[in-house]
Amino acid sequence: MITIVLLGTGNLAKHLFEAFSATDGAQVVQVVGRNMDSLSRFSKMSAISNDFSAIADVDVYIIAVNDDAIGEVSGYLLNKKGVVVHASGAAGMDSIKVKNRGVFYPLQTFTEGKTLDFTSIPICIEAEQYESKQLLKRLAETISDNVQEIDSNQRKKLHLAAVFVNNFTNYLYGVGEEICWEEGLSFDLLKPLILETAEKIQFLRPKEAQTGPAKRGDKHSMQQHLNLLRDKKQIELYTLISEAIQQAYEKKL
Amino acid sequence: MITIVLLGTGNLAKHLFEAFSATDGAQVVQVVGRNMDSLSRFSKMSAISNDFSAIADVDVYIIAVNDDAIGEVSGYLLNKKGVVVHASGAAGMDSIKVKNRGVFYPLQTFTEGKTLDFTSIPICIEAEQYESKQLLKRLAETISDNVQEIDSNQRKKLHLAAVFVNNFTNYLYGVGEEICWEEGLSFDLLKPLILETAEKIQFLRPKEAQTGPAKRGDKHSMQQHLNLLRDKKQIELYTLISEAIQQAYEKKL
Repeated sequence: MITIVLLGTGNLAKHLFEAFSATDGAQVVQVVGRNMDSLSRFSKMSAISNDFSAIADVDVYIIAVNDDAIGEVSGYLLNKKGVVVHASGAAGMDSIKVKNRGVFYPLQTFTEGKTLDFTSIPICIEAEQYESKQLLKRLAETISDNVQEIDSNQRKKLHLAAVFVNNFTNYLYGVGEEICWEEGLSFDLLKPLILETAEKIQFLRPKEAQTGPAKRGDKHSMQQHLNLLRDKKQIELYTLISEAIQQAYEKKL
Repeated sequence: MITIVLLGTGNLAKHLFEAFSATDGAQVVQVVGRNMDSLSRFSKMSAISNDFSAIADVDVYIIAVNDDAIGEVSGYLLNKKGVVVHASGAAGMDSIKVKNRGVFYPLQTFTEGKTLDFTSIPICIEAEQYESKQLLKRLAETISDNVQEIDSNQRKKLHLAAVFVNNFTNYLYGVGEEICWEEGLSFDLLKPLILETAEKIQFLRPKEAQTGPAKRGDKHSMQQHLNLLRDKKQIELYTLISEAIQQAYEKKL
C-alpha cells in the first residue's frame, strides 16, 4: 500500500482523490490545504489539515496547486523522506525545492462534478531519483493502464499540444455555438458532429480525417462562408486556419 | 413504405444506403451513378443503374453528389412525380432544377468504412411543398430521432458552424500530432483528452468548459508556449486564438 498526502483542494486534487479512493494499492492518508471549507469535503475518507507544519509522513506527496504556488508549498516538505511531486503539465520538475522530487501529471481535462475513469488517462511521470521513479510508476499503475516516462522538456511540449487540442478546440466549439445562435438554432445540432470528429481520430490520423472546403481547395465555398461571417475575429480565424489547411495539403501534392 | 432512388455512389450515399437498409419504413429501390465499379457494392440489396434515363419511379430521389453536380443530376428528374432532394449543407435548395424539391441534410461527418448510428444525427429537412415536407419528415424519422426543419439560409450557417467545429478542430488535432512528433511522443497520448474535450460540451456550454492560459490571462505561460513553437503558422494560430479567448473573457468581466 503506497501512502499519499495530497496538498491542494482544487479540481485536480478532487479527481486524484476520487481515483485513489477507488484503488487498493494506494491511499490518501491526509489532505492539506489552506481553506477549511474546501478541505471538509475530503474529511469522510481521509484526515484533513490546514496546518502546513503538521504534514503526515508518507511515501508520496502530491502538490496539486496552481503552478505559481508549487515552490512555496514544496518548502513545507524539506524534511520529508518521501518523494515530492507536482501534477502540472507546464511547470518544470525544478519548481519543487526538495531533492527527492518528481512529477505526476495526468494528461486530461477535469470537470467539476464529473467523475472520470482514469484507466485510459495517460499519467506522465518523471523523477530525480531512480527508486522514486519506480515508486511513482507503481503508484500511477494503481489508477491507470497508461503510464509514461516523460521528461520536463517533453512534458512542456505535450502541454502545449494539449492547449491546441483542448483549449483551442473548445474555443472553436464556442464559435460554432455563436454562429448557431445568430440563426436561432440550437447548439445541440452540432453535438453529434463534435463527438464523431473526436471519435474518428481515435483510429484515423488527423491528416487522413481532414475534410472540408479548404482541404479541397474549394475557393467558391470558402468565399461564401466568409460572406456569412460578421465578427472580425471569426473572419481572421476562418482565413488563417483555411490557409494553414490549404498549405498542408498543397505540400503533399 | 417510402421508396427511394439514391443518385450518387460516394461516401454519403453509402452511409445513407446503410441506414435505410436497416429500417422497415423506407427502402432504396435503385442506386444510380456513372461508375459501374462504385455501383456494384450496392447491387446485393438494390437495383443499380448507370443509365440516367432509366430511373425508377419512387417517392423520394436523393441526390448525394458533389455540390457542383446537383443541378445537372436533377435535370434527369424533370418528369418525375416524387420529391427531389439533395443532401448538401452548403448548396441552396434552388440548385435543384425541379419544382417538387427539397433538402435532406444529415449533419455529420462520414468516414469510409465506419458504420454510424443515425439515431442521434440531426437530419435537416426543407421542401418547396408542404406535402413533400411531411413526406421528408416521415422519411427522416425512419432513421433518426432528431429531425429538424431548417431553411436554406439557416442550413448555410449551420454548415459554416460545422466547418469550425469539425474541419478546423480536426486541423488543430493535426497540430497537436505534429508537436508530439517533434518530441518523439505518440499522438495517442492526446486521444483521451480529445475525446473528453468533446464529451464535456455535450452537457456543458463551451464558455463554461473553457480553460487554459488564455482564459486565465496567464501571459507568462503563453509566452513560454510561444517560445516552444517553431512553425510560423502555428505561432500565428496560437496568437490569434489566444487573443480571441482573452477578448471573449475580458468582455465578460
